Amino acid sequence: MRVEGLDTPVPVVDIDLMEANLRRMQAYCDAHGLRLRPHIKTHKCPEIARMQLELGAVGITCQKLGEAEIFADAGFDDIHMSYPIIGASKAKRLGELAKRIRISASVDSDPNFDTIEAAAIAAGTRIPVLVDFDSGAGRTGVPTPEAALRMAQRVLRSANLEFGGLITYPLMTDSGKFYEHALALFSSEGIEIPSFSGAGTPTAWAAHETPGLTEVRQGSYVFFDRSIVADGAATLDQCAVHVHATVISRNGRRVILDAGSKTLSSDRIPETSGPGFGLIREFPDAVIARLYEEHALVNVPEDCKGLQIGDRVRILPNHVCVVVNLHDTLLAARNGEIVKHFDIAARGRST
Amino acid sequence: MRVEGLDTPVPVVDIDLMEANLRRMQAYCDAHGLRLRPHIKTHKCPEIARMQLELGAVGITCQKLGEAEIFADAGFDDIHMSYPIIGASKAKRLGELAKRIRISASVDSDPNFDTIEAAAIAAGTRIPVLVDFDSGAGRTGVPTPEAALRMAQRVLRSANLEFGGLITYPLMTDSGKFYEHALALFSSEGIEIPSFSGAGTPTAWAAHETPGLTEVRQGSYVFFDRSIVADGAATLDQCAVHVHATVISRNGRRVILDAGSKTLSSDRIPETSGPGFGLIREFPDAVIARLYEEHALVNVPEDCKGLQIGDRVRILPNHVCVVVNLHDTLLAARNGEIVKHFDIAARGRST
Repeated sequence: MRVEGLDTPVPVVDIDLMEANLRRMQAYCDAHGLRLRPHIKTHKCPEIARMQLELGAVGITCQKLGEAEIFADAGFDDIHMSYPIIGASKAKRLGELAKRIRISASVDSDPNFDTIEAAAIAAGTRIPVLVDFDSGAGRTGVPTPEAALRMAQRVLRSANLEFGGLITYPLMTDSGKFYEHALALFSSEGIEIPSFSGAGTPTAWAAHETPGLTEVRQGSYVFFDRSIVADGAATLDQCAVHVHATVISRNGRRVILDAGSKTLSSDRIPETSGPGFGLIREFPDAVIARLYEEHALVNVPEDCKGLQIGDRVRILPNHVCVVVNLHDTLLAARNGEIVKHFDIAARGRST
Repeated sequence: MRVEGLDTPVPVVDIDLMEANLRRMQAYCDAHGLRLRPHIKTHKCPEIARMQLELGAVGITCQKLGEAEIFADAGFDDIHMSYPIIGASKAKRLGELAKRIRISASVDSDPNFDTIEAAAIAAGTRIPVLVDFDSGAGRTGVPTPEAALRMAQRVLRSANLEFGGLITYPLMTDSGKFYEHALALFSSEGIEIPSFSGAGTPTAWAAHETPGLTEVRQGSYVFFDRSIVADGAATLDQCAVHVHATVISRNGRRVILDAGSKTLSSDRIPETSGPGFGLIREFPDAVIARLYEEHALVNVPEDCKGLQIGDRVRILPNHVCVVVNLHDTLLAARNGEIVKHFDIAARGRST
């Protein structure tokens, strides 16, 4: 079937663009001696992750144990959990995974440490641990090289854990400075930093400029989206996923599309980067001004001849990761012909 | 299992509160002689819709054919499609449904009319059609009573359609004025308006004040949420669904919860109604200032003793409909004990 024959609203990935995106990032990493450990949050699809491994990725990155369980079931045996795992129930689940596959974890607090250690003890195996540091974005991570050292020393004292290095998100100019300070501090204590992992597609192409970086965990590069284009890390022509939608009502300047927040999500990007809830590729000046659950309200000039009822458009999502997570499958096209569908197996796995 | 034992983040419905909400709305409708035709968009769950029917609802309302197909498969035989259905493929699907169950449709344009008529012809049955009018919100609907009359006359001229009356969303003060103008106009042409259907939980308790209203299609009243509370149509204590989350990282004023936009959605409510991405019931002054896909960033006073790593909180979602649509199941508790789960069978059915 042709894309034009699909019922809308429907996200469709262009496989040729996706494959080119996968190859380009792997080539960049290969050229700069960086290991690529893709974050599966964007596609949540074992089949696509397998393509990433075949191109040279060293393993995958997950945030939630529910994602890792899906991917372990699908045969993936090297997963990093870049997320604070906390509590007895999650220790048990992490331990079950550690019995089956090589799983490493990030740590940024004592309760987090205790959880990972309990998992390792339960599994009877050593779990590699990377110390997560905050390079300025203020999300997770220890705040200073001194705090990173204390946490690394705790890891090194544990018989059940292995110190795997440092990790941060997102990769920023300050990430390299933090690493250099940490390197000096750790060296003075005779501690080696085996690896340094960073992530963030917006700054992906400058990752090699970060001192000491050995690994990247990019996610969005598989598809790209309007946000990444606004950040300058991709062109519109490289964006692989669009939501196909139909005009279902119109009254003068007011056009209604059949894709609302249950299809596009309500994620915004900064107004200066792009107004509204997505970019209509055929009418880039039209603004998706408002989303209801199943409607998009688009304002157009009164004399706009396009966007008549029944017309179809392609919407570039603001943020593709949350769009894919709304759908159980992702249809895939080559030259406009639907050739397969991807099973978004880890969709909704948030625990 | 107790709610406190569940892995987070997880939405949980309090069944007692939900049942009270269902009874209260049905009692209101019964007291005022209004038919209740609940919109399933909020729960997307046949089991909950069946409870609504057992209490006295006359049928259900869907927006997307994919939802109606799920509910028809589950045995529902009276569905109104309050959404512009457009195009040949959707005409075919509507026709298939019309062969199986009583399905009615809304219409606000000629292409919309043509689609419904094609479905009726294919099904060999008459489809009841309500003319959708815009009472000022500017979403769908014909703009004037005159346009409504023209559309009703088109329906009346068709051998395959049945004129069912007028329909609007959301119900506003102007809805009644529109209806009264239309009533005079239709009467002058000798046309009866068999029913008048309105919707919108924020104004639900004043629906009976709308002249001529015969039916309401409320959705959110099953659970309520922070938005509805801000609108004054429910109290905090009536809200039946909360997302249970855990503090997974903290650095002074910065608290990180494990529920991000893939759990809570990015839906906002007006800043004056409530800042941030949801209300933390235990810390109503704390603001969920930012959502990542799997993280919520909460700013608290430096000396805040609560919200330590490992602590659990209940988040009242800004907009419960989009939260439920992110999850395949909805766990249900009585007095804090998990007693069952609801299958969100129509989750993600957006076509």
